[in-house]
Amino acid sequence: MKNILDRNQNKANEVRDLLISKKVLMVNIISSPGAGKTTLLEHTCEELGNKFRIGVIEGDITTDRDAQRLKKYNIPIVVINTEGGCHLDSHSISKVLDSFDLDKLDILFVENVGNLICPSQFDLGETFKLAIVSTTEGDDKPAKYPMLFREAAAVLLNKIDLIPYTNFNYESFRSDLGKINSMIPLFQISCTMGDGMEEWYEWISKKMKD
Amino acid sequence: MKNILDRNQNKANEVRDLLISKKVLMVNIISSPGAGKTTLLEHTCEELGNKFRIGVIEGDITTDRDAQRLKKYNIPIVVINTEGGCHLDSHSISKVLDSFDLDKLDILFVENVGNLICPSQFDLGETFKLAIVSTTEGDDKPAKYPMLFREAAAVLLNKIDLIPYTNFNYESFRSDLGKINSMIPLFQISCTMGDGMEEWYEWISKKMKD
Repeated sequence: MKNILDRNQNKANEVRDLLISKKVLMVNIISSPGAGKTTLLEHTCEELGNKFRIGVIEGDITTDRDAQRLKKYNIPIVVINTEGGCHLDSHSISKVLDSFDLDKLDILFVENVGNLICPSQFDLGETFKLAIVSTTEGDDKPAKYPMLFREAAAVLLNKIDLIPYTNFNYESFRSDLGKINSMIPLFQISCTMGDGMEEWYEWISKKMKD
Repeated sequence: MKNILDRNQNKANEVRDLLISKKVLMVNIISSPGAGKTTLLEHTCEELGNKFRIGVIEGDITTDRDAQRLKKYNIPIVVINTEGGCHLDSHSISKVLDSFDLDKLDILFVENVGNLICPSQFDLGETFKLAIVSTTEGDDKPAKYPMLFREAAAVLLNKIDLIPYTNFNYESFRSDLGKINSMIPLFQISCTMGDGMEEWYEWISKKMKD
């Protein structure tokens, strides 16, 4: 396991150096299955597609369904099917970077495989990791899956429109998250209803200008 | 990887032989984080705790929160913290079986780590796997994570009370599932609201009597 992680880290460092030289921001998006990664990308492409040059790497066990959903935005998209693998690694990212013209990109979103665990442990060479967690998963996710919340640069709490129909306790969620990563920016959003999305667009736009 | 799976399989076969000799049914419950595994166990203990002798193995990355929720049922519970591991394996199950008096159990529920991927690949020696998927995760989960749905003996579609607030398409879900495993029993339930739970109790009770 240590060997695998070391080899992954070396390649991730190469990827990071390349992206820095090309001034491309890479965001590694991690969440449970169905927390809203693709829906976030749909709305982000819609809103920011005219201001920034966006590319996407879609990581999935199988199928290109997520990529199909993003096709309408006419952006470069590459699918990585892991065929059973539960996370992306830096070697698979490095391979597909050739398919992009990095001189013509501002940001490359990587939608990792739907999984809260292993994707947090593999550096892809990203600029930062972004955690999405949805209210319907329950308020105990930061306490039970701390690695991701320790690693991420920001947390998007999605599906806040469904809170009234669940037993999600925001105070408990906030408190657990604070114990793991007290300074982490937290955005309360509903990708489908639009709540809180302006703050997210502002934050990610600022990251691209930095 | 093949070595790991072979060693896991050998130990799983031992576990299975032991459980058969003791007439204990072992159910390996697999789902995404927050799909409702623990809530299902709470209600199942409440409903069937007087009819059957139930034990639980709680698999979690860290914390004993799920076990705490089940404490009130006065049943034997053992926690396995995987400390970063994204699934249980047969060796960890074999080790903790000593903590149970198998002569005094009818059923042993194993709540696997919240993850749709690797837990499907590791036989624990269970009698069968049970898949839980919640409507709020979207209707595309069988197509995107086929392994679990191929392996499981039944699927519980949980949180059906939330369908009106999502874009979950039951026909699409059913059709994708049918392509992967056409004969699999599918229960539409809401653990929190009680819908469909009678059918689940009947089904699992029948499995224990078989």
